[in-house]
Amino acid sequence: MKLLYSQLKELLNGKLIKYGFSSIDSDIISEIFTESTFDGVFSHGINRFPLFIDFVKKTIVKISEKPSLVNAFGAFEQWNGNLGPGILNALHASNRAVELAMENGIGLVGLQNTNHWMRAGTYGRKVAEKGFMLIGWTNTIPNMPAWGGEISNIGNNPFVFAIPHKNGPIVLDMAMSQFAYGKLEWMTRMGKDLSDFGGYNSKGELTKNPAEILESQRILPTGLWKGSAMAIVLDLAAAILSGGKTSKQIGEKDIETSLSQVFIAINIEKFFSEEARETLINETLEFIQFNNAEVGYPGKRVMKNRMENLKNGIDIPENLIQKINSL
Amino acid sequence: MKLLYSQLKELLNGKLIKYGFSSIDSDIISEIFTESTFDGVFSHGINRFPLFIDFVKKTIVKISEKPSLVNAFGAFEQWNGNLGPGILNALHASNRAVELAMENGIGLVGLQNTNHWMRAGTYGRKVAEKGFMLIGWTNTIPNMPAWGGEISNIGNNPFVFAIPHKNGPIVLDMAMSQFAYGKLEWMTRMGKDLSDFGGYNSKGELTKNPAEILESQRILPTGLWKGSAMAIVLDLAAAILSGGKTSKQIGEKDIETSLSQVFIAINIEKFFSEEARETLINETLEFIQFNNAEVGYPGKRVMKNRMENLKNGIDIPENLIQKINSL
Repeated sequence: MKLLYSQLKELLNGKLIKYGFSSIDSDIISEIFTESTFDGVFSHGINRFPLFIDFVKKTIVKISEKPSLVNAFGAFEQWNGNLGPGILNALHASNRAVELAMENGIGLVGLQNTNHWMRAGTYGRKVAEKGFMLIGWTNTIPNMPAWGGEISNIGNNPFVFAIPHKNGPIVLDMAMSQFAYGKLEWMTRMGKDLSDFGGYNSKGELTKNPAEILESQRILPTGLWKGSAMAIVLDLAAAILSGGKTSKQIGEKDIETSLSQVFIAINIEKFFSEEARETLINETLEFIQFNNAEVGYPGKRVMKNRMENLKNGIDIPENLIQKINSL
Repeated sequence: MKLLYSQLKELLNGKLIKYGFSSIDSDIISEIFTESTFDGVFSHGINRFPLFIDFVKKTIVKISEKPSLVNAFGAFEQWNGNLGPGILNALHASNRAVELAMENGIGLVGLQNTNHWMRAGTYGRKVAEKGFMLIGWTNTIPNMPAWGGEISNIGNNPFVFAIPHKNGPIVLDMAMSQFAYGKLEWMTRMGKDLSDFGGYNSKGELTKNPAEILESQRILPTGLWKGSAMAIVLDLAAAILSGGKTSKQIGEKDIETSLSQVFIAINIEKFFSEEARETLINETLEFIQFNNAEVGYPGKRVMKNRMENLKNGIDIPENLIQKINSL
């Protein structure tokens, strides 16, 4: 079924209101789910909405809680998300990091005790649209075996790095698995294979079949030992910088909640004019795509998807629409 | 030939003095080359020393130049490396980031116009030993095709993320290629294959043979499109944050010099006791290695190598010793 941006947003907004969100909060949250979907990231957009509502119903996500300040020293603050909605907490924390960077050149907010932020790229994009760089990450429940292991003992801990750019920000948004679990679920729903090995089947062989990987729960770290190592360091740093929980501690509850996140915003306009920045970025992007327009850079596909989908509306599978209607 | 730490350091120190370094500078530089070698990272230790001396002889590395301040705003500073020795510039910049973090909670130094810093992990380790976290990276000459391309148009831009830890810091040190060029050179010298695909041969097929990859110059990004994307964002950010050159601009000279680097230090002791940090880290590392002591974490192998090599001395291939003696 083809939906326009406003139609999808209204559908989700109505459900949020039904489950008790204020009109301000439901407006923001429905906007972000819709944006991610229109950016082509279904896995962290509409496909995850039913699970979000499920967490609200179970009060794992506490819809009226607001973030509160825990510690502050110069350009570094720790906030408690108080188990409020992950999107609202992450928006608050990334905005606060920008305020700190305005005053100090750079600002860091560690956010403890929050819920799933949905798509990492959302916060990178919003901060970059204000003219700041963002480096951020979250930990997750243990959902990936460390390199060389067989049991899920580390998170795939999505990482975001965003740089302002006029034609749409440069946004690296990557989980530490070769494919995000949301992607595996989406590809399974679509009945498609992955483009490359994404994990092991239950016999311990590498496979491109997303359903087999979901069954074995043995997802492959991106870059093999490299993604595994980066996941470990991101998790420890998230827990230390936020004063929150590690993946291991989150896993003790068996529900993905009370996550730790980090937001580092950098004030680049102080030393670097927008014009100089644009020249430098355009020159590099042209160089990378020289002779081969198919070569990608972070944020390229998302902007293309957004443009096309805003113009034409977006196809949502019938069963997913039904699922959301029945919430 | 087996050398003790002091023997290798003295050998390198003598050569540095011969080429005009002050006794203070030669002491620091020979120490760092020796440390990397004893940590088992030959590729960025002794194996690279002849090339470093070659750059000194050609005055690409200007041995008497010191870094100078370009811009300062709060906790964010830009420094010019003035094409001095990369190791000394990077030590200066990382120390300065720590000073900024002491005052402000977090500190960022962008370093323009510097030379190769050898091993990323060096600066992570030194900052972590002072009790601070470090997030840092460098760009390089274009030496890797972006994902989907065939011509080297991006750098493999090593990234470091270090966390203090009593048993030896947690240090992620990763280039954006699956294997560093230094590693390919070292494995070629040893006549060994890589453990996994590292790039393409001249027929465009994936290969584990390091010599074939060195010939084709088509090294594989770590995590395929992910390492490629991260390399692009690290390069742009390094150039913008330091006010320096991009990989593309560095490549115009065909000599790897005038690099851009970033050092972000974070003051974690303010909010988190050493004891709490150690409990959290040890708990996670035990969990990761539970039932499987072979599973790695960043910094584990390096500490093991260092302990063993400090005790027993280290085997250096005869031809490499001869090469250094003849400098």
